This record gives sequence, structure tokens and C-alpha cells, in this order.
Amino acid sequence: MSVPLIVDVASGIHPDLGRRVAFLLEIDRLKTVLRRSDLVDGSRRENTAEHSWHLALAAVVLADHADRPVDVSRVVTMLLIHDLVEIDAGDTYVYDSGEAARSKAERERAAADRIFALLPPDDGLTLRALWEEFEARDSDDARFAFAMDRLQPVLLNSANQGASWAEHGIRAGQVRHVNAPVAAGSAALHQMVTDLIGEAVTRGWLPE
Amino acid sequence: MSVPLIVDVASGIHPDLGRRVAFLLEIDRLKTVLRRSDLVDGSRRENTAEHSWHLALAAVVLADHADRPVDVSRVVTMLLIHDLVEIDAGDTYVYDSGEAARSKAERERAAADRIFALLPPDDGLTLRALWEEFEARDSDDARFAFAMDRLQPVLLNSANQGASWAEHGIRAGQVRHVNAPVAAGSAALHQMVTDLIGEAVTRGWLPE
Repeated sequence: MSVPLIVDVASGIHPDLGRRVAFLLEIDRLKTVLRRSDLVDGSRRENTAEHSWHLALAAVVLADHADRPVDVSRVVTMLLIHDLVEIDAGDTYVYDSGEAARSKAERERAAADRIFALLPPDDGLTLRALWEEFEARDSDDARFAFAMDRLQPVLLNSANQGASWAEHGIRAGQVRHVNAPVAAGSAALHQMVTDLIGEAVTRGWLPE
Repeated sequence: MSVPLIVDVASGIHPDLGRRVAFLLEIDRLKTVLRRSDLVDGSRRENTAEHSWHLALAAVVLADHADRPVDVSRVVTMLLIHDLVEIDAGDTYVYDSGEAARSKAERERAAADRIFALLPPDDGLTLRALWEEFEARDSDDARFAFAMDRLQPVLLNSANQGASWAEHGIRAGQVRHVNAPVAAGSAALHQMVTDLIGEAVTRGWLPE
């Protein structure tokens, strides 16, 4: 069945259901967007859908370490949707400083315009607002969610001896800089990231 | 860095943080557990981590169609963890009726004993209880979560012309039987699944 036919079937039951199903089928594509980090076992690169799952559970499990009260439910939803824009815009490596980094905001905004508009208007506006909040980091929830997004690749890299750092010639100062915002969500988690970076330097996986 | 070393670093900041990080590194393995369904684009089989992400977002987006009030936050957390046991127990195909199906409950219980125990005791008990609730389907939240788990493969199969149904010789009656519990969460969603199965039969992708 083509996707439009599935959407027709769902719309026949309720128009909103048709739009929601169209959205759910479209976001399946996030499973094919590859990130730079490898899995813990080093077997392959991580994709953005499974990364989003991992972050959402990280928020559930690490919420006790947030420095300010957070609404875990909002943080989790934010993390589930935070990278949907990569379906159109692709994954921009956090250490990229070239053309991809310069055009990132514009490309992602255009993607958000298209993807959230697949939903019924009220649903789309709600999720879009949550995505904007994450991007702007202008709430405690968004800052904690952002901390998850930054610290998870440090965990993956620490587990596989800095594989993606080495592959891209990343240095310790860059990792510290990119992870500085973790401190806005949690001093303890920022300390952990700092200590892991120190260990990686000591072991020679990350040049100072 | 080996995982125990990362856990040591985290434990040095707070013992609970060490256990939570051990859990987060362990569950990365869910990304390597393959399910029977293919992605919408048919490019490869779906893994259980990205499946869990897809279900969690399906719950957010489809909650309006639940027949009884559900706590979306609980449903989402349930779906994020519902298949963690597959790290040890593997994915048991929903249409399997052999030895794998018979031993499923026991294998998954042993997996839950090990995996949730990685967490600090209070965290582990909370998530374990949520997993038990999902398995028992003895709440409105669990029944709606279960409906997501059943209907998502119907969407994927409908999109790729019943690829995994055909591969495993599945018939329409089996799909209807496996999806009957969707009705306990949402009459509208059960109607959609029923209509999609009917379309698949009409188009010759699913033998009656």
C-alpha cells in the first residue's frame, strides 16, 4: 500500500487520525539518518531515531541529577522530537564549523515547517513549540534535555575508546567547549563529562 | 575506556550516578536487537531501540484516540522500556507459536531481573513495576501502550506491501487475532487496523 492509501484509510475513520498516521509514517525516515558516533560495541554508527530513544531514557534515569526541578515528561517528549528536523536537514556534526554549521539553523527551520505541519494544526503547534524551546534552551526543561544530547556521545566515545573523536581529529578543548552547556542542566553531570574527558586524554584517545 | 572504568568515574561523583550510567551503557545493546518488521522504505529490518522510539512518539500523537483517559507520560515511559528485556531474551516474533513463544515469559522475566537491577534499587523497582504493568495489561495506560506495540507493525507492513508478513507466511486471521487487543485501548485505532488488514487482503499481500 502506498503511504497516501494508508492515510486515506485512517482519514476515513477520523481526519485527524489520517494526519497523525501520515506523520508517523514520515518520521520512520529518522531511522535512516546516521550520526557520527558509533554504538558502545563499535559495530556501526548510531542512527538518530535510536539516539533519540537513548536520550529519552537517559532523561528518565538521570532526572535526579538535574540542578533545578524539571518536568521529566516534557523533557522526554522534547528529546523524542528534538532531531526530527534531521529527516530533511541531515545530521550536522557538533564539531562542524564549515558551511554545514552556518546553514544548520535555516535548514532545520525549513524542515520543522514541513514536518510538524503534517500533523493536525494544534498538535503540530504544540510539538513545534517544544522543539523551539529545546533549540533556544530558554527553560530548565530545555537545558536539561540539551545536557542529555551533549553528554550521551561522551558516554559512547568513552566506551569505544574515542572512536568517532579520533576519526574526525577532535581535540579535548573542543569536547570541553561543546559540553560546557551540560553545566546549565546539572553540575554533577558536567563534572562527570569533565572527568571522562580527562580520562580519555590520560589514555591517549583524545589529544589535549 | 572499558565500561567498568566509566562507571567508576560516575560513581566517584555519586554512587547512584554510577549505577545509572552502567544501565545507560548496557541498554545501548537494544540497538542491535533486530525485529521482524522492515522499515517503511524497506531498506532493512527495524531494531528494537528505534521501534521503542517510534512507539513512544505514536503514543504522544495518538493519545487523543484512546477510549479512556491515559497518562501519556506513563505510557511513553512504559514504551521506552517495554522491550529492554530483549537485550537478553531476544525478540520473539509475535506470530511465533513454537518453543520461543513457550519460553518467552520465563526468558523475559530473567532478563528483567538482571537489567532493572543495574539501577539504584528505587529506580529499578519503579521501572520494573511499569514493565510488569505493561506485560499484564491491567491498566488503561498499559492497554493503550500495548495497542501502540501491536498497531505499529501493521503500519510498517502496510507501507511496504506486507513484506514481513509474506516472508513469514502470515495469514489475515493471524494478524486480526494479534491485533484484537488494540480494541481494548482504542476502538478507532482498532477499526483502522481492521481496515488496513482488509486492504492488504484485497491487494493480495496477505492471504485470507
